[in-house]
Amino acid sequence: MQLGMIGLGRMGADMVRRLTKGGQQCIAYDVQAAAVERLKQDGVAGASSLEDLVAQLDKPRAVWLMVPAAVVDATLDKLVPLLEPGDIVIDGGNSYYHDDIRRGNELGARHLHYVDVGTSGGVAGRERGYCLMIGGETEVVKRLEPIFSTLAPGAGSAAATPGRQPGSSTADQGFLHCGPQGAGHFVKMVHNGIEYGMMAAYAEGLNILHHADAGKHAREVDAETSPLRRPELYQYDLNLADVTEVWRRGSVIGSWLLDLIAGSLVSDADLKDYAGRVSDSGEGRWTVAAAIDEGVPTPVLSAALFARFSSRGDADFANRVLSAMRHDFGGHVEKSAEPSASGGQKS
Amino acid sequence: MQLGMIGLGRMGADMVRRLTKGGQQCIAYDVQAAAVERLKQDGVAGASSLEDLVAQLDKPRAVWLMVPAAVVDATLDKLVPLLEPGDIVIDGGNSYYHDDIRRGNELGARHLHYVDVGTSGGVAGRERGYCLMIGGETEVVKRLEPIFSTLAPGAGSAAATPGRQPGSSTADQGFLHCGPQGAGHFVKMVHNGIEYGMMAAYAEGLNILHHADAGKHAREVDAETSPLRRPELYQYDLNLADVTEVWRRGSVIGSWLLDLIAGSLVSDADLKDYAGRVSDSGEGRWTVAAAIDEGVPTPVLSAALFARFSSRGDADFANRVLSAMRHDFGGHVEKSAEPSASGGQKS
Amino acid sequence: MQLGMIGLGRMGADMVRRLTKGGQQCIAYDVQAAAVERLKQDGVAGASSLEDLVAQLDKPRAVWLMVPAAVVDATLDKLVPLLEPGDIVIDGGNSYYHDDIRRGNELGARHLHYVDVGTSGGVAGRERGYCLMIGGETEVVKRLEPIFSTLAPGAGSAAATPGRQPGSSTADQGFLHCGPQGAGHFVKMVHNGIEYGMMAAYAEGLNILHHADAGKHAREVDAETSPLRRPELYQYDLNLADVTEVWRRGSVIGSWLLDLIAGSLVSDADLKDYAGRVSDSGEGRWTVAAAIDEGVPTPVLSAALFARFSSRGDADFANRVLSAMRHDFGGHVEKSAEPSASGGQKS
Amino acid sequence: MQLGMIGLGRMGADMVRRLTKGGQQCIAYDVQAAAVERLKQDGVAGASSLEDLVAQLDKPRAVWLMVPAAVVDATLDKLVPLLEPGDIVIDGGNSYYHDDIRRGNELGARHLHYVDVGTSGGVAGRERGYCLMIGGETEVVKRLEPIFSTLAPGAGSAAATPGRQPGSSTADQGFLHCGPQGAGHFVKMVHNGIEYGMMAAYAEGLNILHHADAGKHAREVDAETSPLRRPELYQYDLNLADVTEVWRRGSVIGSWLLDLIAGSLVSDADLKDYAGRVSDSGEGRWTVAAAIDEGVPTPVLSAALFARFSSRGDADFANRVLSAMRHDFGGHVEKSAEPSASGGQKS
Repeated sequence: MQLGMIGLGRMGADMVRRLTKGGQQCIAYDVQAAAVERLKQDGVAGASSLEDLVAQLDKPRAVWLMVPAAVVDATLDKLVPLLEPGDIVIDGGNSYYHDDIRRGNELGARHLHYVDVGTSGGVAGRERGYCLMIGGETEVVKRLEPIFSTLAPGAGSAAATPGRQPGSSTADQGFLHCGPQGAGHFVKMVHNGIEYGMMAAYAEGLNILHHADAGKHAREVDAETSPLRRPELYQYDLNLADVTEVWRRGSVIGSWLLDLIAGSLVSDADLKDYAGRVSDSGEGRWTVAAAIDEGVPTPVLSAALFARFSSRGDADFANRVLSAMRHDFGGHVEKSAEPSASGGQKS
Repeated sequence: MQLGMIGLGRMGADMVRRLTKGGQQCIAYDVQAAAVERLKQDGVAGASSLEDLVAQLDKPRAVWLMVPAAVVDATLDKLVPLLEPGDIVIDGGNSYYHDDIRRGNELGARHLHYVDVGTSGGVAGRERGYCLMIGGETEVVKRLEPIFSTLAPGAGSAAATPGRQPGSSTADQGFLHCGPQGAGHFVKMVHNGIEYGMMAAYAEGLNILHHADAGKHAREVDAETSPLRRPELYQYDLNLADVTEVWRRGSVIGSWLLDLIAGSLVSDADLKDYAGRVSDSGEGRWTVAAAIDEGVPTPVLSAALFARFSSRGDADFANRVLSAMRHDFGGHVEKSAEPSASGGQKS
Repeated sequence: MQLGMIGLGRMGADMVRRLTKGGQQCIAYDVQAAAVERLKQDGVAGASSLEDLVAQLDKPRAVWLMVPAAVVDATLDKLVPLLEPGDIVIDGGNSYYHDDIRRGNELGARHLHYVDVGTSGGVAGRERGYCLMIGGETEVVKRLEPIFSTLAPGAGSAAATPGRQPGSSTADQGFLHCGPQGAGHFVKMVHNGIEYGMMAAYAEGLNILHHADAGKHAREVDAETSPLRRPELYQYDLNLADVTEVWRRGSVIGSWLLDLIAGSLVSDADLKDYAGRVSDSGEGRWTVAAAIDEGVPTPVLSAALFARFSSRGDADFANRVLSAMRHDFGGHVEKSAEPSASGGQKS
Repeated sequence: MQLGMIGLGRMGADMVRRLTKGGQQCIAYDVQAAAVERLKQDGVAGASSLEDLVAQLDKPRAVWLMVPAAVVDATLDKLVPLLEPGDIVIDGGNSYYHDDIRRGNELGARHLHYVDVGTSGGVAGRERGYCLMIGGETEVVKRLEPIFSTLAPGAGSAAATPGRQPGSSTADQGFLHCGPQGAGHFVKMVHNGIEYGMMAAYAEGLNILHHADAGKHAREVDAETSPLRRPELYQYDLNLADVTEVWRRGSVIGSWLLDLIAGSLVSDADLKDYAGRVSDSGEGRWTVAAAIDEGVPTPVLSAALFARFSSRGDADFANRVLSAMRHDFGGHVEKSAEPSASGGQKS
């Protein structure tokens, strides 16, 4: 099947490569000509402009956008006037599903079809395949199945779920039509919300293990500091590369994320290459916002989100308010950083 | 190698079977004679009492306890007087590592060796193998390697971690000597703490998906209830069995726990077989307590723990305090249960 | 000064009474004629319809809406066509500040002035006065000062803040022009968010005290239950009415909310009149949503919000997911309710 | 009544002054002779050593310790041998109630009485009086009432609680015998836990207000950053000194802590004098540990505690784990600090 791909960044280019390798025909375009050139050298057809891309596609066209969420609308503003009734636009990036619903209505008014695809898989997706969560009209999604099944990992990528009727859904192959427009990005949004929570669970647990030698570091005795009552309980020097490795076999917490952590710790046991300023690209925020709208409690997912905010210093004013109160009611003076007892960088 | 096993419950009996199948020689004992009988029928040697067990073992003996954490000390009180210097006692249950340190000292004074083994794997362990996190004296742990390597899943049970020196540690086989006494259960404790957080991340995310049709249910308009401002955004009927199935292939949140959820949802999409009273067997509590001792923030792991407490009604008095305050400052009267909008049991 | 009041519920009627007592002239209207009658009996002028209300007011008119947030727009739809350029509409309810910004623009296009007033004080406000957080055009807010200063508690209601320039702002009197349209409800929204957090802090703390006798209740010993390791530490029978009373004098946590709790506990030490289903009327949700938009961590305020959701059963599906996972990996069977150890209703 | 006071720091010296002014007879001692001298100049009797202190006291003696929790035991080691059966030792500091129970037993074995007093009031206590939460034997506590009633604020310091029987308990005067040994510090511990929660509620809310101008600061558009979707909603420049001042009058969140914040913000609107490294002196940790023992959910109190840990950098390793995972699955590169958008120090 033929597909136009707009956006040849990290994800888009790899998806074109996987589609091409899987026998689909891609025409690739990016605002940066160099990105198009790189794919051309891999034998992929390229386009020099949106007009050129649209011209090269057979009708009804299928165009996949793989651009940052913040520029989808600007891209659509230029693309949509070039399209014709019956054409399909697929947004495979990390759009907010609110925007999908709006865009679906806007494009529908022009008799264009809009499909939203939440795409998971990251840099490993080219080889492993991508997990695709899809929203849109049933007939249109059906029409795109050759694309989806080529991008997806396939049924063999995981053991069959006991009790599950084989082939009862394309979910077994790694792509799923979740519902009407927005449903794909809604499910992907929650996927990422869960991802935040899982990542934080690992990170917090490893931090406890990292500080399991706390009893070896003397702590000052003063009215500002809670002493460690039983230092003999915190005398462990744990090898986290080994610990995460052992958890990969037979434990309850095995996962792909754990595989990645185990790999990171092999080469850099203290993760000194990172400063610990953790970005969030939106889905975690939207997940918690959806939970609040629905009245569903998400203490874990929100704690994970807020830990990222705090990692970037965004609790600073709140912390100063706390210090000011402590000063005013108790005469407490702020302590400066304590190199030995404070956490991160152990000698 | 020869091993005495005390405690033939769910875990202990399966471990004996795996050891026997792997060529190790087990002598099995349980306070319930029937449990011993069941294993005897599988060709395993049984003991009729602790004395009988000890008598059947070659010196220096190795005895593995697989009993509830709450009865380990009572069992040791009876077992220890029967042992001789050089014998090894292994606690493979879910003991608090504080107890390991104490017991290690107590048994050491009698020239007995104490080894603590955090054992993960659950009911699947008999086939998959068990992930073993081990604390104790280096030489003693070394001596027990045939046992550990038979119980563990083996190197082939997971792909090699890129960059990792093959054979640099037994972690690659699924068992690890983590450090001195208590280290095994310390690492297992944190493993379970992470497990709580991961489980809660999935549970919260699925709850959001479960309520993605919130816009279809009219909510009352009154001063006590926050209206859903944009019901058109919550019109999705999601098939969670399919959603969790699709996530098993290529997504970032793939894991063994997800595999299990996908299986549960196949047969019971609303999980009506469960009431949602979630137990906690200690490790989650101890993990948070350790974090507090170390001064390490664990907002996610503690939120997961507290959600379990709340699931059992242990926030009730706090909630009544809130309602009383609301009544007194704002004249707010408690609303009774709202069958349509409240979450759990959708029709 | 003359003011039309629309909405004579709990809050609106009391505000009319306070204004009237303070020498302002009110004309009162409510869709329920009985509510108007009640105020007429107190000597307040009443209106029989919106038209009647508008007709009785001198130009430029000032009309205060004190109606549920969910019906403000419907009320404005009827009121606005009756007004003339230069008239002022004040929304004193709990509107979302997003709506204020929209309404300010809509009314501004008709040369009407829109003022949003976050009003705190609850049922005690008639006597204590109301804390007013105001958003709108500076000149318009200035014009309404007689109304605001009559509703507000006045400077004498709290001791002067040391170091503060007397009269540097009307804040000292209990009302404040916070900024342009929406600013009043924005500040009120965060006020309520803080209120959620404070209430939860008290509620959680009192719950700990309520269970300080946990060591007196035997807990089962099984693999599903974490035993209380040192029951001798939880042998206290605390009188919470006395504890909250003593905190009212000289402690760091004294507050008006604490005064209310102390009062509630006098008559009903176990708060048996409440079921503990805690409503939320919107501001707590909006506060967390604003924090997320701003990238500001609010772990405490969101935990307080989610505890309310959970109190109404909205975590149920998530809890069932947890139980299903525990069953599937560990063979754990859900325990039924434990009357003795579970929290709320102690014998 | 006569009292020996050991420990003349911030709290101890002020308590001696209040007792002396209230007609009680104090003999003051501190390991730092200069501290004794300062009180002597105020007309208080001083002691040059523990022996001297004990010699000057009439039998049965009453000795109050007001020293850091970490040195109570060392002080008792020296003091106890000097005392005689029937003497009373009062620990008025911030001891862990576990220690009270142990010390009560140890001193009881020598026929000495041990009383634990949780003392709240901070630097304002000398004038306002101290809120006293007391644990110990009933008869002994009764004997010390002259001391307690002089230290406490007195009934007039707060309005009577409606419905409360006047004089039904000394709680109305600001001191309370809570229960047996440890009960005083248990109640004080939870008091401080609540204090953490309340402080965090204010701090988080004020942080939201502090960033209410977020829409004025352009944020980068890239795949790492969630854009602010509606900047027009965050255009407020709020004067937090005024906002906290207005909340002091008639609002639901009025409190002594709020009075203090309002004062801090008058002189330093951005609280630039503080770095925001917030200490914790133990009670918050112990409160959460007690909640965990009891199985009582405390999501708010623990979130407040963990925010303090994070303010001191103790989440650093966890954050690096998050960044490493994001790099490995998504190719995400950490962003460096964003001076304009990051929270704390606005220009």
